[in-house]
Amino acid sequence: MSVLYQRVAFIGLGLIASSMAHAIRRAGLAAHMTGTARSAQTREVAREIGLVDQVFDTAAEAVAGADLVVLCVPVGAMEAVAREIAPHLAPGVTVTDVGSVKQAVIDAVAPHLPADSHFIPGHPLAGTEHSGPRSGFAELFDNRWCILTPPEGCDSPALDRLSRFWRGMGANVDLMDAPHHDLVLAVTSHTPHLIAYTMVGVADDLRRVTDSEVIKYSAAGFRDFTRIAASDPVMWRDVFLTNKDATLEILGRFTEELFALQRAIRQGDGALLHEYFTRTRAIRRGIIDAGQDTDAPDFGRARKHGADV
Amino acid sequence: MSVLYQRVAFIGLGLIASSMAHAIRRAGLAAHMTGTARSAQTREVAREIGLVDQVFDTAAEAVAGADLVVLCVPVGAMEAVAREIAPHLAPGVTVTDVGSVKQAVIDAVAPHLPADSHFIPGHPLAGTEHSGPRSGFAELFDNRWCILTPPEGCDSPALDRLSRFWRGMGANVDLMDAPHHDLVLAVTSHTPHLIAYTMVGVADDLRRVTDSEVIKYSAAGFRDFTRIAASDPVMWRDVFLTNKDATLEILGRFTEELFALQRAIRQGDGALLHEYFTRTRAIRRGIIDAGQDTDAPDFGRARKHGADV
Ligand SMILES: NC(=O)c1ccc[n+]([C@@H]2O[C@H](COP(=O)([O-])OP(=O)(O)OC[C@H]3O[C@@H](n4cnc5c(N)ncnc54)[C@H](OP(=O)(O)O)[C@@H]3O)[C@@H](O)[C@H]2O)c1
Ligand SMILES: NC(=O)c1ccc[n+]([C@@H]2O[C@H](COP(=O)([O-])OP(=O)(O)OC[C@H]3O[C@@H](n4cnc5c(N)ncnc54)[C@H](OP(=O)(O)O)[C@@H]3O)[C@@H](O)[C@H]2O)c1
Repeated sequence: MSVLYQRVAFIGLGLIASSMAHAIRRAGLAAHMTGTARSAQTREVAREIGLVDQVFDTAAEAVAGADLVVLCVPVGAMEAVAREIAPHLAPGVTVTDVGSVKQAVIDAVAPHLPADSHFIPGHPLAGTEHSGPRSGFAELFDNRWCILTPPEGCDSPALDRLSRFWRGMGANVDLMDAPHHDLVLAVTSHTPHLIAYTMVGVADDLRRVTDSEVIKYSAAGFRDFTRIAASDPVMWRDVFLTNKDATLEILGRFTEELFALQRAIRQGDGALLHEYFTRTRAIRRGIIDAGQDTDAPDFGRARKHGADV
Repeated sequence: MSVLYQRVAFIGLGLIASSMAHAIRRAGLAAHMTGTARSAQTREVAREIGLVDQVFDTAAEAVAGADLVVLCVPVGAMEAVAREIAPHLAPGVTVTDVGSVKQAVIDAVAPHLPADSHFIPGHPLAGTEHSGPRSGFAELFDNRWCILTPPEGCDSPALDRLSRFWRGMGANVDLMDAPHHDLVLAVTSHTPHLIAYTMVGVADDLRRVTDSEVIKYSAAGFRDFTRIAASDPVMWRDVFLTNKDATLEILGRFTEELFALQRAIRQGDGALLHEYFTRTRAIRRGIIDAGQDTDAPDFGRARKHGADV
């Protein structure tokens, strides 16, 4: 793989940024990497583990001379970061982000960027429930999708370069408009997360079933929910606040369906339940065929990275 | 491990029965194993792979002379099976089951069994979304819980022997009364399954987001849901129909909480969301500490059994 950017600057050095840094090194995609994070502690850790070539105390210093700037902070922090870096961006720079919501990031960031920069929002569909500069690993994006939502009239060489960059990190790249991205993700990620958070909260609240029982007897279903519900609270708060409309729409549909199933249980309508559960099975088959998961039972026990345990 | 039963008979030869057969062989817990299943096809497969020593065409033949009979059929089929086997049970036999609901199984089975038999209901908290005689594997119960719900005045030597038997298959054994079991499982397994089924159904229904998009971009959250929602429709229909009250109670609590979070999203109450998501994180920590899961990110890709893929 050849060098695609001379100087890549990360604003925010958490899970996504650190995974990108490892993936960039693995493929030799950048000549030089810089970065900064909000807290002195994160910057210190990043220096200690040599995450990027230079860690700066300010975003202004980090972006100076960069031909690619990657915003890797929670969605709600994007606007402040954009304001801060704008005056220090090099001419012709490409600015991208990895936020889980796209329209809100565009609204927050685009107005602040200079006219001679190329803003190409992005979202890699890959993550774990871990955070921080030590949580990244080079394989995170392998065979996962990265969705880019370029604005109309986006510079094609800049878009092409960023697409090759993500492919170099192992991802498959797709283009989409931002509102559609936000709706698709409300279905496949945001609403499922809210539901998992809710279910785990219910378990925790219940008085007649103790927390230790819930923990001890967490069977497959609940265990998966707790993993989802262990994700970063700030990131997810921002996702729901900024992808409000799509999330509320999908939640409305969800509640409707849930009430129908609830009624079927109450009325003992086994045929309806059986038919419903049979239909949902087919989607799973599709995901396995699409290579997004494996058929193997793993019960949450299997390990991919010895080092990550 | 020494032989604990001379002749173990399985009624039903699906995931749980076949996993038990492998685990029993691994530890040498039974001198002889027999089994039967409803369909000729399943019985044929069981013979072909040598799942048990003898596969019979009828439950009556399978249980003849057995000192342990294990009912491994969906909860809704337990009563018919109990009626069928009752006249053919040997004196002093222990009858157990593996159904996911316990009070309904007791109500369905106990009245039919002879007075000189020992009925000790059980439920191993281990499973996958796969079914049938080929889906079992010896490790399924390793370090998982098996809950027994012995009736009052249960014969202690019989209970002790069955407990040692489950431990021999790798499980940890706990005793509980049946209604409490049903409530705990409604929280940790039954309601989460219903919610996952619902969410997958919503995704499938949505017109503006295609199934192929849902499949292609299924990020962590949704992918876990599809695995849960791929479980056997008959088994789950029976679970909800027979654990109706507890499931409806937990669903009621769930809906209440979901509405509170939904309102917080609508009103932009980030503090409430953040506080809620922070609280749910702690439960996850508890599960990892309790050894029921691992901290490692696996993204549903990792494999436990090469042979099972
Ligand atoms: N995690 C996932 O599964 C996932 C997947 C795809 C996309 N994303 C998106 O990727 C972005 C980063 O997520 P992540 O998982 O990498 O998060 P993370 O591990 O928590 O890291 C976030 C980084 O942003 C910095 N930061 C937080 N708040 C800030 C603020 N108000 N101002 C400036 N910097 C701030 C943090 O600095 P300190 O360390 O100093 O606090 C940290 O370096 C988010 O927009 C998220 O939506 C996440
Ligand atoms: N799967 C799990 O995750 C899990 C976990 C713990 C407990 N359980 C409980 O274990 C029991 C068995 O589940 P499983 O996963 O092993 O199911 P499975 O793989 O689908 O096997 C079910 C077996 O029961 C037989 N059967 C089905 N309906 C029957 C009927 N009406 N009359 C007689 N036999 C019938 C089937 O025969 P054919 O093959 O001939 O159709 C098959 O051999 C259920 O009560 C379930 O609640 C399941």
